[in-house]
Amino acid sequence: MDIAFALYPGMTLLDMTGPHEVLAHHPEVTCHYLATRPGPLATDTGFQVTATAAFSDLPRPDVIVVPGGGGYARALEEETELVDWLAAAHPSAAWTTSVCTGSTLLAKAGILTGRPATTHWGARDVLGGLGAQVSTDRVVVDGDVITAAGVSAGIDMGLTLAERLWGLETARAIQLFIEYAPEPPFTPVASEEAGPEMVEALDRILSGV
Amino acid sequence: MDIAFALYPGMTLLDMTGPHEVLAHHPEVTCHYLATRPGPLATDTGFQVTATAAFSDLPRPDVIVVPGGGGYARALEEETELVDWLAAAHPSAAWTTSVCTGSTLLAKAGILTGRPATTHWGARDVLGGLGAQVSTDRVVVDGDVITAAGVSAGIDMGLTLAERLWGLETARAIQLFIEYAPEPPFTPVASEEAGPEMVEALDRILSGV
Repeated sequence: MDIAFALYPGMTLLDMTGPHEVLAHHPEVTCHYLATRPGPLATDTGFQVTATAAFSDLPRPDVIVVPGGGGYARALEEETELVDWLAAAHPSAAWTTSVCTGSTLLAKAGILTGRPATTHWGARDVLGGLGAQVSTDRVVVDGDVITAAGVSAGIDMGLTLAERLWGLETARAIQLFIEYAPEPPFTPVASEEAGPEMVEALDRILSGV
Repeated sequence: MDIAFALYPGMTLLDMTGPHEVLAHHPEVTCHYLATRPGPLATDTGFQVTATAAFSDLPRPDVIVVPGGGGYARALEEETELVDWLAAAHPSAAWTTSVCTGSTLLAKAGILTGRPATTHWGARDVLGGLGAQVSTDRVVVDGDVITAAGVSAGIDMGLTLAERLWGLETARAIQLFIEYAPEPPFTPVASEEAGPEMVEALDRILSGV
């Protein structure tokens, strides 16, 4: 099973590593880390990862995973090879998936037109503008496409996909392996409920993104 | 604020990227990715990351994060520079932290002797053998040391640390930013409760690690 992770400058590392950790250890899986060209590229914190092949090297992966990230707006404009590869590879893939704003790249490739899909809460308008039916769910399965909400939702998406690929017992074994029994230290807050103090804190944090 | 991530061959990528995603976007933070020598190294799935400096280049980081991974047993034997650096850097660090089997490296450096600490469920005996008081909690805060259970627990650890560094509103803003409102698709199972079918599935999955 060939799983292709689509990498690009400005992507968010956890968007990729969530589903990657869930899927990559399975003995059936061969992971491919694709980008416009092989070599190092910087994620949205500056941390460097390495693409092992070009998009054109793997036209027919079995599973596609597209992360989002602070650089997604640039990617929508400039990552034409990624978007063209997505559009061409999707029809023969068993599963096409995204995490966070990665769904906007799926939409740009025409894969989400008129279909329900989710994204990071900060990019819902963008996703809707690209023709998807925007959902606020954490994970949306629609036929052979699975989209996840922001960043950490990629772990939930990965497990959802693992069950479909290998069955419930294996998916739960992977969940145990990565100890995904989450205990967020604070009650999660929904974006609609964020007060002015939190919005200010968010603005400060994200000023560098 | 200098945050040092200690990298080594065979580490688990999500162990590092969980706390990294929580901490790295804050404008006060400068991340350093340290290893025995700068350059590329392979995580336990083969995915390549890049160390930007040697351990000796940053003797006094403010925060230390040590990931675990399939390669931790080898690291305990062979990563002497990492362990020596940990022992020397810990006293001046504000926070020394680990995820998963990273705590065994803290223990090897003498940081956990007689102290409560947690680790991946599969490494509790090893951690105890290295002198720590083994806890089964997901996150253990003991003075200036925070340890996390396996893999995904690094996100909970990162948020726990973020609150101590920057206060509750900022930590909750980060939680919103990474949409950490987990919805595991299946009920998490504890290691003690894993039935034979799941243990078999785990063995299959982990045979390649």
